[in-house]
Amino acid sequence: MNTDATLELACDLIRRPSVTPADEGCQALIAERLAALGCHAEHIRYGDVDNLWLTHGSGRPLTVLLGHTDVVPSGPETEWQTPPFEPTISHGHLYGRGAADMKGSVAAMVVAMENFLQAHPDHNGTIALLLTSDEEGVARDGVRRVVSDFLAANGIDIDYCLVGEPSSHERLGDTIKNGRRGSLGGRLIVRGSQGHVAYPHLAENPFHRAAASLATLCETQWDRGNDDFPPTSFQISNIHAGTGADNVIPGTLEVLFNFRFSTEVTADELKQRVHSLLDAHNLNYELDWRLSGEPFQTPRDSRLLQAAQQAGEEVLGYPAQTSTAGGTSDGRFIAPLGAEVIELGPLNATIHKINECVAVDDLSQLTRIYHNILSRLLL
Amino acid sequence: MNTDATLELACDLIRRPSVTPADEGCQALIAERLAALGCHAEHIRYGDVDNLWLTHGSGRPLTVLLGHTDVVPSGPETEWQTPPFEPTISHGHLYGRGAADMKGSVAAMVVAMENFLQAHPDHNGTIALLLTSDEEGVARDGVRRVVSDFLAANGIDIDYCLVGEPSSHERLGDTIKNGRRGSLGGRLIVRGSQGHVAYPHLAENPFHRAAASLATLCETQWDRGNDDFPPTSFQISNIHAGTGADNVIPGTLEVLFNFRFSTEVTADELKQRVHSLLDAHNLNYELDWRLSGEPFQTPRDSRLLQAAQQAGEEVLGYPAQTSTAGGTSDGRFIAPLGAEVIELGPLNATIHKINECVAVDDLSQLTRIYHNILSRLLL
Repeated sequence: MNTDATLELACDLIRRPSVTPADEGCQALIAERLAALGCHAEHIRYGDVDNLWLTHGSGRPLTVLLGHTDVVPSGPETEWQTPPFEPTISHGHLYGRGAADMKGSVAAMVVAMENFLQAHPDHNGTIALLLTSDEEGVARDGVRRVVSDFLAANGIDIDYCLVGEPSSHERLGDTIKNGRRGSLGGRLIVRGSQGHVAYPHLAENPFHRAAASLATLCETQWDRGNDDFPPTSFQISNIHAGTGADNVIPGTLEVLFNFRFSTEVTADELKQRVHSLLDAHNLNYELDWRLSGEPFQTPRDSRLLQAAQQAGEEVLGYPAQTSTAGGTSDGRFIAPLGAEVIELGPLNATIHKINECVAVDDLSQLTRIYHNILSRLLL
Repeated sequence: MNTDATLELACDLIRRPSVTPADEGCQALIAERLAALGCHAEHIRYGDVDNLWLTHGSGRPLTVLLGHTDVVPSGPETEWQTPPFEPTISHGHLYGRGAADMKGSVAAMVVAMENFLQAHPDHNGTIALLLTSDEEGVARDGVRRVVSDFLAANGIDIDYCLVGEPSSHERLGDTIKNGRRGSLGGRLIVRGSQGHVAYPHLAENPFHRAAASLATLCETQWDRGNDDFPPTSFQISNIHAGTGADNVIPGTLEVLFNFRFSTEVTADELKQRVHSLLDAHNLNYELDWRLSGEPFQTPRDSRLLQAAQQAGEEVLGYPAQTSTAGGTSDGRFIAPLGAEVIELGPLNATIHKINECVAVDDLSQLTRIYHNILSRLLL
């Protein structure tokens, strides 16, 4: 198998400065390559976001390789040892913004598909590549909308979805994500009454009113997690009250918080518990919720997860552990369709950082793993 | 007694837009009037602040009338019914910025002095008028510095100090302030470790660390006050953490707070109790203190307070209550010298507000009260 092609394609993609939500022609380049092998491409643009739905074959099972062509900003270019959008190979690693997250794995997916289709043009079912340029940004007109608009309108059911997000910790393939926690955000406004600090009886300090409730929220054990999920966590990301003047009791307190929650609790349960606590303290408040994603979990005996574990062990010689830790990914939009969803990609040590990189050998091995998974599912 | 002169002088002062720390010639105008009666004036300028120390007579007792010629900004002029720096009489009230705080009472002091000196040029002891243009501002180069530099250098001991701040609540002279609470400010920085909300075990949320301590600070009863002071109060005026991003655990928490404290506790005791609490919670913190003023109290049997109460009842026909509530005033700088200090002035209902005003009749009555007090102390 020509895995050098993966490195070449990764370099071509990194050279395009596709800072979210820009695609900079990455998807057209990929579509052109795979069209040569008989793939059918739908270019789906929502707002300023490019999405690509590219398929080969027909019928079930439908296996989707899911990735994104957008990258996070480089940060100060002068801090990079080499320019972030000039792919550079040094000491066995490919450097550049997106090398690990996730132009490297997109390249591995494309090359794995090419090799697989050349060898097995008459495979079972359907293989699809779904790419978006809005994974790192607001993630509204990307996979979320492809699911709600395009897939729904076309009656497309997905059986397996392999996400190329960088799941590996210390060596390639040591970890496969078989689910993700849910993410539930809240914006809490507590209203008091502004006044002079010398006349507290004529004012009502919203922080003083809320302090005990907030302390309780910080101390609460929401659940104990389970074999697949760590306990649900609560974090206050922002808290603000006061105008800077040190003799004025503030009239309003604003708190932004976020739950990352396990399958042991639902978003509605969390909302209800927070409201109960705030109501019990007789707070005058407004609370806006934003559910970014429900938790999902792909069972350990699922076909996709087993295929990925077998492929990894066959290519790498060591087993993978499963995990549901870490942030969200576009997998959260696919899982509610009933698909098996896993994430398997490069090391995540340098993602979003200065001098992002991926090992050149890992690109080759990842291509082999993806190819092996396709063979197990579609032959 | 020509109390119309008080209204005229109050108008002349309001017409000068002496927004802190500007004096706009108010003090020169006053010094010129009183020089005609044999007063000696020292114009003391520190930085951009004008101070006036004006005396008549010699020896003890030294009775000081204390006031300020600066005013707070007008706020949006279009919201005023009449222009804030054009004195306007309507429905028996004089409108304008500073009418109540405290150009009205400064005018009453000056006219009371004029009347008193005309009638009693050979009074006992010394009468002094101390004016500053930095009471509403940072209050650094005003009375604070006159005390620490000028009075100290000249070996001047004050026996009685009558402050003209608006002390009245519902009708003129219903309240005399015979002390003020102390004011102790703190700026608390709690340090944590920034991180991603999805990886709370790799970060340390400073608000989560501090939440229980802050709730305890808000709930603590610091003392029960006493006959002259309400209980010590604690207020958080500002609390800030987070950069706006809702997926980042903040690295630092900043809290500004303020104690208004009674004579039942000392600033050092409050500091020690706060540090003990924060230390008990193992917080990584920095805490800068600012002591704006120690509490002071003029006893109920003091000569100045009794003179003021008798004068008020004689002029007004009803008694005054004593109080130590409310904000700080320049009296805090005089009290530590060992002087008896009280505050007696107009109604405080409109101070610092749009359409600030004082009743014209109250200016006349206040002039009579001040004159009456001078007679009781210096004849």
